[in-house]
Amino acid sequence: MSLTESAAVDVARSASIASRQLATLSNDARNQALSALHQALDKNRATILAANAKDVEMATRAAADGTLSHSILKRLDLSRPGKYDDMLQGILSVRDLNDPVGNVTLRKLLDEGLTLERVSCPIGVLLIIFEARPEVIANIAALAIKSGNAAILKGGKESMESFVAIANVVSEAIASSQVPVPSIQLVRTRDVVSSLLAQDSLIDLVIPRGSNELVRFVKDNTKIPVLGHADGLCSAYVHSDAKIDIAVKVIVDSKTDYPAACNSLETLLVHESLLDSTLPVVAQALLDKGVSLRCDSASMDALMKALPADKRNNLSAATGADYETEFLDLVLAVKTVSRAEDAIAHINAHSSGHTDIIITESREAANCFMSSIDSAGVFWNASSRFADGMRYGFGTEVGISTNKIHSRGPVGLEGLTIYKYLIRGEGHGAADYHEGEAGRKYLHKSLPIDK
Amino acid sequence: MSLTESAAVDVARSASIASRQLATLSNDARNQALSALHQALDKNRATILAANAKDVEMATRAAADGTLSHSILKRLDLSRPGKYDDMLQGILSVRDLNDPVGNVTLRKLLDEGLTLERVSCPIGVLLIIFEARPEVIANIAALAIKSGNAAILKGGKESMESFVAIANVVSEAIASSQVPVPSIQLVRTRDVVSSLLAQDSLIDLVIPRGSNELVRFVKDNTKIPVLGHADGLCSAYVHSDAKIDIAVKVIVDSKTDYPAACNSLETLLVHESLLDSTLPVVAQALLDKGVSLRCDSASMDALMKALPADKRNNLSAATGADYETEFLDLVLAVKTVSRAEDAIAHINAHSSGHTDIIITESREAANCFMSSIDSAGVFWNASSRFADGMRYGFGTEVGISTNKIHSRGPVGLEGLTIYKYLIRGEGHGAADYHEGEAGRKYLHKSLPIDK
Repeated sequence: MSLTESAAVDVARSASIASRQLATLSNDARNQALSALHQALDKNRATILAANAKDVEMATRAAADGTLSHSILKRLDLSRPGKYDDMLQGILSVRDLNDPVGNVTLRKLLDEGLTLERVSCPIGVLLIIFEARPEVIANIAALAIKSGNAAILKGGKESMESFVAIANVVSEAIASSQVPVPSIQLVRTRDVVSSLLAQDSLIDLVIPRGSNELVRFVKDNTKIPVLGHADGLCSAYVHSDAKIDIAVKVIVDSKTDYPAACNSLETLLVHESLLDSTLPVVAQALLDKGVSLRCDSASMDALMKALPADKRNNLSAATGADYETEFLDLVLAVKTVSRAEDAIAHINAHSSGHTDIIITESREAANCFMSSIDSAGVFWNASSRFADGMRYGFGTEVGISTNKIHSRGPVGLEGLTIYKYLIRGEGHGAADYHEGEAGRKYLHKSLPIDK
Repeated sequence: MSLTESAAVDVARSASIASRQLATLSNDARNQALSALHQALDKNRATILAANAKDVEMATRAAADGTLSHSILKRLDLSRPGKYDDMLQGILSVRDLNDPVGNVTLRKLLDEGLTLERVSCPIGVLLIIFEARPEVIANIAALAIKSGNAAILKGGKESMESFVAIANVVSEAIASSQVPVPSIQLVRTRDVVSSLLAQDSLIDLVIPRGSNELVRFVKDNTKIPVLGHADGLCSAYVHSDAKIDIAVKVIVDSKTDYPAACNSLETLLVHESLLDSTLPVVAQALLDKGVSLRCDSASMDALMKALPADKRNNLSAATGADYETEFLDLVLAVKTVSRAEDAIAHINAHSSGHTDIIITESREAANCFMSSIDSAGVFWNASSRFADGMRYGFGTEVGISTNKIHSRGPVGLEGLTIYKYLIRGEGHGAADYHEGEAGRKYLHKSLPIDK
């Protein structure tokens, strides 16, 4: 076993052991740790910002050299107005959410004196791998403690100084609480990621926070379940009976509100009957916002006919790859379909299962679309940009999952829990219930679930 | 791409496409398919039993040669009294369960005219790999159709004739219903398993039904989530204040009711204060039932002292490996602990996360044990043998999961579903809700969930 491997095992094992103790703490005890964390980060603001300034200085030079993107530089900077306070406030917001642990979701009397309960509990050990944003440390530490999970955090090298400073404050704050210190571990060693991703017997869930490349790397290199999404290829289908104003409003918002977001629109499917009516109006509105359209031949012909010459510059012929691309930019692929079924088939074949929308006045067409489309979010006459934990009212968001099991769509604290079955008996044995005349019968009587 | 690989892709892709259509069918339509399946299997009983007789004949010869175990031979035989009728009745039982699809679990008014719903839906495509039992085909086909999932089934070579006969009947029955025929596909090609396990973009969940070796092979050879458990290493801890009669009853039942089951007891942890009192009584009861005890030195010394000479034959010294072994036989490892914490640490380090129990009169000790033990089932004064979907009252059981996400413990139909988020709007865009004076505010008002 290499040093890196044995370090990874040590980290994961101590987190696993800590997670069991953390799982027994009351909501009050976990909340007290969050209050301590908030207080410590507030008190050590100057130290942390000084460390962060060093990271920003290094990154500014790297950005000037062209070896680092300006968006990473921007994400790195904790001194931007409001950012530090938002981080602090985020801890209190998480603290004040309902306790996700210990909720009884099933209670049954199996027989006299023999009760079954299903109760929510922490998953165990989370591994969070993130890129530049240093405030993620506080955010994830808060989510993990609130949900009773241990967390191992590994940040990017650009935020190393901030990371070390925050790590020290977090450890000190936790040490003053009932939460075991190894519950939150900040891994500074480089090259430890692969070794951590191999600890599938000790780590229960990986949450990558960063670029598509990071998520894809993590998914491809671990047997641990991964919560997240590599791609957000969202599509909209405009049905034959769509109202023009609704189509314009929803599509322009989906595409232009924040083009770099995973819930932005990337493909527009339009019913052929709308090529000369609704499509030109929608296209005009998009072009006015600076969107480039990559069109199939039918939509291209229609738009070349309908649009004035000076608007045709941002039209180009779509290639097959355009319908597989998450542009994350003011670019939209357009395709003509002759039936709703074709739109559904296209989306199920090309979408990333994130969020897809239909614009129609027909409840029947909407219901068919909503049950046929196999995505985390399926919206009717509403922008794909609503796919977001805060907008859904979850209070916080761990990430957006395109998995088909456990958690799907925006994941809140609930997604960091699982359940266990508890049975309380008075010395009951199963042999007494075997079939036959003398066998006792199970009652299987539902009992009220009092909070 | 090899022929096997391309066959696997074809099977998985057609199942995936069928799953989308299946997901739109009503409960009535799915139930009609189940009725048709029941009827067809009833009508073709003679043909299927004739095919099964060929499998049994082959297997009988193999068992005589010693190349096949007698337990597989026994599991293969559909003509044993009641077995075929149980299989038929099982289909009707699944049909008559509550619809697991389309249940709304969250409904919110995000703003006027903008509602969010979380609704249960099928996972998509299941891959079920099973060994000898031919009745699993009918059982799994029923579960898949009821839950709106497509299923690809791959059986063991011992049941090939039965498999082909049942497959033909299943396909014919489904063809007479609204369920698309590729929803249930029975793969006969040998050596296709590895290729199917590689289809992680088309297959959503694998359910292995068979030996620990099968489950472990599947878990080690796929990126698709696996529902199941390789091991069932269940432990019991007898606390210092345990009542003797409860300890005897629960431990004897846990160990001897059906030793080959995954929910049988394999390790007994006993508080040191009980070595000369409760332990000898429990040990005597186990020895009377033919159980061999593998003891640590403290428990061995105590039992050698307390038990009459003729009872000491079935005692032997435990090795470290005994505490890691799922005996599946009348063998039990015994270990002395000096504190409840030591029992908890031992179980969390050695248990397979299936089911563990505590025998105590103290609610406090029980609660601490139940929140500290990280297993799918944690029982107080009740036999581990209750860990079972039928006993829990779930109506049916897909398997018992020791996963830490999605489904844990006995998994019923609910474990074959996930959810999607549906938003219904009237042309709402997210930009209208941006911060600032003019920004609209989200209502996030919970709405009643009417069934």
